[in-house]
Amino acid sequence: MTSDLKPFFAPSGVALIGTSANPTKLSFGILRNMVEGEYRGGVYPVNPRHSEVLGKPCFADISSVPDPVDLAVIALPAPSVPETVEACGQRGIKTAIIISGGFREVGPQGLELENRCVKIARRYKMRIIGPNCVGIMDLYSGVNTTFIKGVPPKGNIGFLSQSGAICGAVVDYVLDKDIGFSNFTSMGNMADVNETDIIEYLSVDPNTKVIAAYLEGIKDGQRFLEVARKVSRIKPIVMLKVGRSEAGARAVSSHTGSLAGSHTAYQAAFEQTGIIEVESAAELFDVCIGMVYQRPPKGNRTVIVTNSGGPAALASDSLAANGMRLADLTPETQAFLRSKLNPAAQVGNPVDMLGGAEPQEYADALKACLADENVDATLAILTPQALVNPADVGKVIGEIAAQTDKTVITSFVGGVSVSEARHVLHGMQVPMYTFPEQAGKVMGVLRRFGAWRSKPEGSLVTAFKGIDQKAVQKILAETKNQPILGEAQTRPLLAAYSIPIVPGEWVQNADDAVQAAEKLGYPAALKIVSPDLLHKSEAGGIRLNLTDAASVKSAYGEMLSKIKKDHPQARLEGMLVEKMAPKGHEVIIGMRRDATFGPLVMFGLGGIYVELLTDVAFRIAPMTHQQALDMVNSTRAGKLLAGLRGQPAADIEAVIDCILRLGQLALDFPEISEIEINPLLVYESGKGVLALDARALR
Amino acid sequence: MTSDLKPFFAPSGVALIGTSANPTKLSFGILRNMVEGEYRGGVYPVNPRHSEVLGKPCFADISSVPDPVDLAVIALPAPSVPETVEACGQRGIKTAIIISGGFREVGPQGLELENRCVKIARRYKMRIIGPNCVGIMDLYSGVNTTFIKGVPPKGNIGFLSQSGAICGAVVDYVLDKDIGFSNFTSMGNMADVNETDIIEYLSVDPNTKVIAAYLEGIKDGQRFLEVARKVSRIKPIVMLKVGRSEAGARAVSSHTGSLAGSHTAYQAAFEQTGIIEVESAAELFDVCIGMVYQRPPKGNRTVIVTNSGGPAALASDSLAANGMRLADLTPETQAFLRSKLNPAAQVGNPVDMLGGAEPQEYADALKACLADENVDATLAILTPQALVNPADVGKVIGEIAAQTDKTVITSFVGGVSVSEARHVLHGMQVPMYTFPEQAGKVMGVLRRFGAWRSKPEGSLVTAFKGIDQKAVQKILAETKNQPILGEAQTRPLLAAYSIPIVPGEWVQNADDAVQAAEKLGYPAALKIVSPDLLHKSEAGGIRLNLTDAASVKSAYGEMLSKIKKDHPQARLEGMLVEKMAPKGHEVIIGMRRDATFGPLVMFGLGGIYVELLTDVAFRIAPMTHQQALDMVNSTRAGKLLAGLRGQPAADIEAVIDCILRLGQLALDFPEISEIEINPLLVYESGKGVLALDARALR
Repeated sequence: MTSDLKPFFAPSGVALIGTSANPTKLSFGILRNMVEGEYRGGVYPVNPRHSEVLGKPCFADISSVPDPVDLAVIALPAPSVPETVEACGQRGIKTAIIISGGFREVGPQGLELENRCVKIARRYKMRIIGPNCVGIMDLYSGVNTTFIKGVPPKGNIGFLSQSGAICGAVVDYVLDKDIGFSNFTSMGNMADVNETDIIEYLSVDPNTKVIAAYLEGIKDGQRFLEVARKVSRIKPIVMLKVGRSEAGARAVSSHTGSLAGSHTAYQAAFEQTGIIEVESAAELFDVCIGMVYQRPPKGNRTVIVTNSGGPAALASDSLAANGMRLADLTPETQAFLRSKLNPAAQVGNPVDMLGGAEPQEYADALKACLADENVDATLAILTPQALVNPADVGKVIGEIAAQTDKTVITSFVGGVSVSEARHVLHGMQVPMYTFPEQAGKVMGVLRRFGAWRSKPEGSLVTAFKGIDQKAVQKILAETKNQPILGEAQTRPLLAAYSIPIVPGEWVQNADDAVQAAEKLGYPAALKIVSPDLLHKSEAGGIRLNLTDAASVKSAYGEMLSKIKKDHPQARLEGMLVEKMAPKGHEVIIGMRRDATFGPLVMFGLGGIYVELLTDVAFRIAPMTHQQALDMVNSTRAGKLLAGLRGQPAADIEAVIDCILRLGQLALDFPEISEIEINPLLVYESGKGVLALDARALR
Repeated sequence: MTSDLKPFFAPSGVALIGTSANPTKLSFGILRNMVEGEYRGGVYPVNPRHSEVLGKPCFADISSVPDPVDLAVIALPAPSVPETVEACGQRGIKTAIIISGGFREVGPQGLELENRCVKIARRYKMRIIGPNCVGIMDLYSGVNTTFIKGVPPKGNIGFLSQSGAICGAVVDYVLDKDIGFSNFTSMGNMADVNETDIIEYLSVDPNTKVIAAYLEGIKDGQRFLEVARKVSRIKPIVMLKVGRSEAGARAVSSHTGSLAGSHTAYQAAFEQTGIIEVESAAELFDVCIGMVYQRPPKGNRTVIVTNSGGPAALASDSLAANGMRLADLTPETQAFLRSKLNPAAQVGNPVDMLGGAEPQEYADALKACLADENVDATLAILTPQALVNPADVGKVIGEIAAQTDKTVITSFVGGVSVSEARHVLHGMQVPMYTFPEQAGKVMGVLRRFGAWRSKPEGSLVTAFKGIDQKAVQKILAETKNQPILGEAQTRPLLAAYSIPIVPGEWVQNADDAVQAAEKLGYPAALKIVSPDLLHKSEAGGIRLNLTDAASVKSAYGEMLSKIKKDHPQARLEGMLVEKMAPKGHEVIIGMRRDATFGPLVMFGLGGIYVELLTDVAFRIAPMTHQQALDMVNSTRAGKLLAGLRGQPAADIEAVIDCILRLGQLALDFPEISEIEINPLLVYESGKGVLALDARALR
């Protein structure tokens, strides 16, 4: 599906257009990396002013470069790039990386240049990475279009980045840490190829097992969702997204001119596509090596095997904080451990073999724990001791890990004394962390990812019974000059999508109000209808518990005159008469349209505490039934609905149905920008829900 | 005040009792460290079986060791340690470190040995560190009673640990990271000298600027509070406490036999003494170097100066997540930057000087930003670039940092390319972090610590008007066989400490109920009094809004017969008649006695959502007014009381008064183990509070 990107990563020949002979120029650095690396195809510098650079013959133009050549790397001043792209197209080259800056990121003129490049490329069916990037480093084909110093070890992490500097820093950081990569992609301005394209390519790249990304913003949210959802089932995607805060979003925007977007929407997108979001670069590496070397545990029961107590306590806290628990070893396992270990050893969990523990004791203990049916995963901890060689311990752990399908990770706590052990362990596909806290965190991430993957994929719910699009069209047409729809106008929108609302009627005078109340049944509520008084309660525009015709009539009159007095400017459009609804749990359901992803649906605790408690979760429509359920379950409101202190469970299925219908309404009518039902009353299981108040924005 | 501990860290002569000539023995390692290190006093191995070890003459017993000698390091089998301590005492040695294990941690026999050692030591006014520890390494005196390989650079972090392995791992970790220490103390079983003693010593140790601790459990909580509160005003204490989770607490207990205690209480203790709690070993080092090299910023306005956008975005997010914000540079500063930097540079904040930024540009930009009145702190970021030497950049940053009293920290993102820069920066007292996220976190920690320190110290509130201890004594005497006191019996406890309670009377029949209601005024509430029905509401034991004598009378009868039917076993002790209280904000105030720290006072959102929302904060009594206020402000309930959406502020002072009085009640009466007021109704500012329900446990 993504084979048109292959020449970027494994080209048959590479033309470097604009290579300088000056060693202080970046284009010289690119040629040096191409020549000194392991790339075995042809490398052709193109520069009419030189006959050769670094021993490579230089070509006057792209047309004179010999076959085969399917990747052009362009490092020329921005104004001359469009004609160069044109020349590459004519030469039949299908992939080009534009290293040069001076495009979208510098303003309108740059953007115009960028757009011209894309237009030309489209004409030739060329794909472009960049501009304003450092390009690609592939550890398997040896292609390296970057000017970054150093090449990390070969491995199975594919890394994509919207920042070239991050790529460079990552390479520099991992050089001495035994962390292997399949490839790096610096995407720059993403004029053509974007993050979703690269993720799609990496999902079929045989050298990539884990996809790691540094991201500032996504262009097409719905396509990203569609691709990420599929890819996460094949390979884990680990994401470091900046712009989580307003300050971060501002930094992103001043950096690349792109919009970081609402992080709430990104989080929802990540949650529902199984993307593993990390909060720091350090965590990105920790999680990636966990994912690339090991498999997710089948449950959360973990054994710690250690030669010291303190680090085991740190690990225990970290495991607990990350949803894991200490496994209960069987009596048989404990008896076996007692027979093999130091008589003073602790054979419970943590298994503390004491400071003198030799490689053989680690082997015995780990093997026994991994064979225990109560165990899903092991964490082996070593602190440096005078007489034990950490690398030897690493070797036995690696051997044991190779023989089990349970999860084995390690923490060798220290620095100089344990770096050889890390080399050994990573070479044997066992991740090693300096601190036990990191190991605990990664174990939790592995488990959560495993749990996510083990849930049925489900399908997006997009077909509903009882939907009347025409009714919605009609209301929207009738109200087309109103930016805000109050309760009276939002009620029929909900009704058209079969979202249950409290029975009510919109009336224009007291007599009609009485008639409506008689029909609906008592007790009744009266609510003012006014486009200028949307906070009805605070405006004194609500009267509750009216028990007979007289009280409805007098309430109507009193409320009307009071509101006319307090808010003389407010336009009054009658009142809503509603039957008082029976008490239920109060939740809130809402939707606001995100610029990147579309309809962002919200669920949380409703009523007066909404603002104080911010107990809300988000997902993007369309979604699966499972995703809606996950959203509900992730909130405290979800716990309330599940039944606290022996209370009966509430009708969560009806809530999910509302969530899905509200999402569909938003998908069907893009002109609705926001909609909120607060409160939605939720009754006992089987007894449904009832929207008690609602409003919408266009 | 703590001069009796000085010989541990700077002894005039050291006797090593039990030194082996076998290089695989730990006692040999200790002698090697003492001999090979920089210690300049006399080192005297004591072992009757050798005439010399490692070129040092060996003494037959401690009495034959020449003067001066004021520290004995004992590495002998546990059973012979008490007699050795005795011999040391006779020899006039005032400080001893017992390295050996085999004491409390192995069971009752070991504990008995340990107690004997302490008893002997007390007799001679000796102080003991250990047993079961690795002792002390002091980088200034050169004393090193550990067998740890390697010695970290001299610096100003004093590290104490309840785990010897952690000490060893820390030394190993920091060896190549340019992190300097003043000393290490491994405290082992803390038979005599404990964490509080060491913290007290370090507070006066001139070589220590920051106190770092790995802790498993504290013995005397109230003394710890008293000392830590004072020391935090002089030197920051950075704490890594394990046992935060149940699993962690279990691991601690199986490790040392000590109790980790409730982490809630520890957190409260740390909060109110200004101790900086960290959650991982990695964070411990990050925070310590920040604290030791730099001063807390005076505000949260931070400038990022960078040569690349991605890491600046990461930093911005991290700063925001840690309570810092991006400063608004003045137009003058921006104009200056524009005149000095690359024309394409961003001169807003983050100041992005682009990839080619030279040391001089860093110097210009940092100087200008530090001179800006809108700036409290700067974060300089560098990603490795082809043509810029990071160490040169480090040097100019160090020079500028030396000339300002604002905060300067850095993140040089990478590995091999930036390690020399770290050496330079740390040498010039500027902390360098590998990842911008770490820098952002540390900046936030520095700021919070600065803010804490800038608050007036205040004094513990222990004197109250309107306290009637005798009344409490009487109630406790009358109820001495009751483990639980219901509302009826808890009300007078509160009243005795002038905590306002809703007016009410405890009556035994319907007629008295009516009489009481008439006296108290309508509407009234009736509540069952029964030691067996503490959840009165769930038992059907509450009737509200009774508006006249007839309804009180009938409610009494109905409730009584229904309860007799539903709960035939329950002992019924009459009913409480209460005047219905006006509506107010519902909060909860409580106390539970912590085994380590004593009365742990709680405050949070009350009413039905308590369990669902767990919006609670804790402090230990006695406390200052400021501490009580901080506790209230740290909760969502505090935000509610402060006034949401333009609502008037509630009577927070009255809440604080209740909190302090409840704490005093708990301090005065240790037999009360728990007490809870839920809800406490809080009215508008100046209108006080009212306890609506309460209970107590002994």
